Amino acid sequence: MSSVVEQLEAALPRSEVSTDADVAQTYATDQAGFCRAGRAAAVVRARSVDSVQAVMRIASATGTPVVPRGAGTGLSGGANAVDGCIVLCLEKMDRILELDPSTRLARVEPGVLNGSLDRAARAHGLMYAPDPASRNISTIGGNVATNAGGACCLKYGVTRDHIARLVAVLADGSLIRTGADTVKNVAGLDLTSLLVGSEGTLAVVVEVGARLMPARPACGTMVAQFADLASAGRAIVELAGPRNLSKLEIMDRTTVRAVEAIANMDLDTSAAALLLAQVDTVDAPAIMAATEATCEALGATFVATTLDEREGELFMRARAMALPALEKQGHCLLDDVAVTIPRVPDLLELCAAVAERHQVTVGTFGHAGDGNLHPTLVYDAREPGQEAAALAAFDDIVAGTLKLGGSVTGEHGVGMLKRPHLARMLGERELGLMRGIKGVFDPGGILNPGKAY
Amino acid sequence: MSSVVEQLEAALPRSEVSTDADVAQTYATDQAGFCRAGRAAAVVRARSVDSVQAVMRIASATGTPVVPRGAGTGLSGGANAVDGCIVLCLEKMDRILELDPSTRLARVEPGVLNGSLDRAARAHGLMYAPDPASRNISTIGGNVATNAGGACCLKYGVTRDHIARLVAVLADGSLIRTGADTVKNVAGLDLTSLLVGSEGTLAVVVEVGARLMPARPACGTMVAQFADLASAGRAIVELAGPRNLSKLEIMDRTTVRAVEAIANMDLDTSAAALLLAQVDTVDAPAIMAATEATCEALGATFVATTLDEREGELFMRARAMALPALEKQGHCLLDDVAVTIPRVPDLLELCAAVAERHQVTVGTFGHAGDGNLHPTLVYDAREPGQEAAALAAFDDIVAGTLKLGGSVTGEHGVGMLKRPHLARMLGERELGLMRGIKGVFDPGGILNPGKAY
Ligand SMILES: Cc1cc2nc3c(=O)[nH]c(=O)nc-3n(C[C@H](O)[C@H](O)[C@H](O)COP(=O)(O)OP(=O)(O)OC[C@H]3O[C@@H](n4cnc5c(N)ncnc54)[C@H](O)[C@@H]3O)c2cc1C
Ligand SMILES: Cc1cc2nc3c(=O)[nH]c(=O)nc-3n(C[C@H](O)[C@H](O)[C@H](O)COP(=O)(O)OP(=O)(O)OC[C@H]3O[C@@H](n4cnc5c(N)ncnc54)[C@H](O)[C@@H]3O)c2cc1C
Repeated sequence: MSSVVEQLEAALPRSEVSTDADVAQTYATDQAGFCRAGRAAAVVRARSVDSVQAVMRIASATGTPVVPRGAGTGLSGGANAVDGCIVLCLEKMDRILELDPSTRLARVEPGVLNGSLDRAARAHGLMYAPDPASRNISTIGGNVATNAGGACCLKYGVTRDHIARLVAVLADGSLIRTGADTVKNVAGLDLTSLLVGSEGTLAVVVEVGARLMPARPACGTMVAQFADLASAGRAIVELAGPRNLSKLEIMDRTTVRAVEAIANMDLDTSAAALLLAQVDTVDAPAIMAATEATCEALGATFVATTLDEREGELFMRARAMALPALEKQGHCLLDDVAVTIPRVPDLLELCAAVAERHQVTVGTFGHAGDGNLHPTLVYDAREPGQEAAALAAFDDIVAGTLKLGGSVTGEHGVGMLKRPHLARMLGERELGLMRGIKGVFDPGGILNPGKAY
Repeated sequence: MSSVVEQLEAALPRSEVSTDADVAQTYATDQAGFCRAGRAAAVVRARSVDSVQAVMRIASATGTPVVPRGAGTGLSGGANAVDGCIVLCLEKMDRILELDPSTRLARVEPGVLNGSLDRAARAHGLMYAPDPASRNISTIGGNVATNAGGACCLKYGVTRDHIARLVAVLADGSLIRTGADTVKNVAGLDLTSLLVGSEGTLAVVVEVGARLMPARPACGTMVAQFADLASAGRAIVELAGPRNLSKLEIMDRTTVRAVEAIANMDLDTSAAALLLAQVDTVDAPAIMAATEATCEALGATFVATTLDEREGELFMRARAMALPALEKQGHCLLDDVAVTIPRVPDLLELCAAVAERHQVTVGTFGHAGDGNLHPTLVYDAREPGQEAAALAAFDDIVAGTLKLGGSVTGEHGVGMLKRPHLARMLGERELGLMRGIKGVFDPGGILNPGKAY
């Protein structure tokens, strides 16, 4: 019997299989810190569904683990290699197969970047709504596998809400088709929703049927500064109430300072927090006026609004830089926790208290309007004790979030990073059902072992 | 070993267990025609989670089938009794346990009527969006189990989009909790979405965590009449385009005549079809004007609009009477098919052609704006051949829908009625996965056997 690598080389086009150590290294990890990465036996950069099926057949026959991978921008270690695995990279399958403005459905390969699909849609006056900050660098397949969120999910929902159909390859190499093109469909169990967010543990997504919607330009944008976190928190609760904003983001002082340090945007680095709000409906002027009044009544030290789309984008630019800017300040350990809206002020306070207690820097930013924040621990890995303090702070934030009735992950997924915390949120019976379902899709347990649930 | 009935009587409060033949008869079927109903061994009208768990433990131990049941308004035979089963009726568990306006979450028992929850929400300026025409007679548990749709789903999505959490009892009597209160949550596989629409085959839902949203009064309503189905179809495609309506419903001539016959609403019974549209945003006047212009440009023979909410409700009342009115005309066999929006004109044409071909009466009405129609075959069961013709027409409509790339059921579920058609839509592998998942939840296959997939 020939080796796994020999079988892959025999079954696949030459250019798709690599055993080069540098290539393996490049594809060994995603963007998360603190997650172990194993040594892959081979990296396959598949260019066709046939190749994906061939890989899975060989992997199944030989019991070889397979780690599906999009662009590797994940923040939970979900795409990290495991020892002896095949890293199955989908980024070269990057064609938009069909984009039908009449049905508003796009059929795309999994390696298409979110931003590429959105741009293609906009050429028809449409948009692909889910907008992770990584939209220009992450793949639709990865977005589906993590059920990616983004800023406008507050109004338009997450990836799951925009996926009509999936084509996927099971562990044994067989192909399945889930969902329907129709808006409504209750024909059997919802396998599409199940695959979305399954983090590569159930099947390899090889085609995505995505729903597009009419593009809605941002026609009002507000930036507001607050002298303390408590007022910013109260403003978030108030502003989220009427459900008329398309985006509501927050950056705390640490994050603002980090952005200002790299971008010189004249941000007020003394403010405790900055809120950014957008609206995309015709009543933008009225909503912006009410939003401004709310912020002022709650003690905002500065508020600016604009009804100009381009100027609005400039306002929002600071938020897009949050993570890269913090990464310039030191090692980053990014958290991803979610609470209900009334608990957002408590979560902000929790993050500040944890920073104080462990004497670590926490930069908190995120999707305030849907209660999903990214407290980010910034530290110097060379300083003794700092890494341990960051890890302890991370754990405290997750534990505190659970006490607030929240979720251990709002959008980045469990991957490896949140595995220890998952069992604190879910019961044994529920975890058992998830593992049972995995057993139905992947009886040999070869798909992304050791990840997620 | 005592009998199942003896065990039930020993474990449950007296008043909850019935073996009365009349009671069994009352709870034997839902509202669907053409579905066989078996003879239940017992009917349990559970009043507590404990009772539900006790029933499932006894059923599991004895291998007794259990048919969960809400209000029995289902239209696919999903709640029909099977021989020797326990009908487990949840309608007496009808308490709203909690309604928190700050988080906009309601925790309710499964037997709460959809309309009761919505009314409770409206007392706080909120609403429960999914609005099946049966909202005042169907339960939230049944809505969850069928993933019920409704008129405003065109704008607000279906039941699945409004369920945050579920508490459910598995076949073995154990209790699970799925989902989270947070808006965003990617902690493990989405068991909540999986249970929604599972038609009582995976677990018994005993508590529903439902999301509420700000109530939005209808501030514009239009009724338009068309002399032929083709123009009405074209108008639907045009009106659905901008995605700014909250409702877009259709009634064809047969349906309008049936309604007029019972309600005397001065409807024009010569029109081929009537469209009803509503909008619930501040720009209602502009949208209504554009909607009216579109209908006129496409040949509407009559258009009326109102910006008054009460008058709008009067306009919509005709639509709510569609099914009861058709039922006055004869035996009804109601279909539930869905296509993409551009295919709606083809589906309307298909229904008319099928009526012609089989010489049966078809009254077509439904949620035009999301492509989900209910062609209803009306016939005289005593006339020889009419029932066979109706059944043949039903099959032809489903087959034709599949040819149009549609779904065999948009919102009523598979139940028993659509079982023969499901395999024409799904592949063997996909059906196998669904059955495998059922095996994980219900290894003994006791939950609603012979239904759905
Ligand atoms: C600067 C930055 C900003 C970010 N902002 C956001 C944000 O706003 N919202 C958000 O949700 N995330 C955000 N992320 C995280 C990340 O971009 C998302 O998780 C994204 O969905 C990952 O896509 P990817 O193509 O990089 O997938 P990868 O990282 O390659 O993989 C992610 C997971 O999906 C699986 N997978 C990938 N492709 C497939 C496939 N075809 N079939 C089956 N499984 C597959 C992998 O096994 C892995 O478990 C951000 C990341 C960065 C670096
Ligand atoms: C006049 C009329 C109008 C209608 N309009 C619509 C409409 O607009 N949209 C729409 O979607 N439907 C509509 N329906 C169909 C029906 O009302 C829905 O399917 C509804 O969701 C059924 O709820 P129920 O409580 O009556 O459930 P039942 O009919 O009792 O049961 C339906 C299914 O759910 C299961 N079930 C019920 N409760 C539970 C539970 N607690 N746990 C697990 N499984 C359970 C049953 O086993 C069965 O499979 C209409 C019906 C009528 C009669």
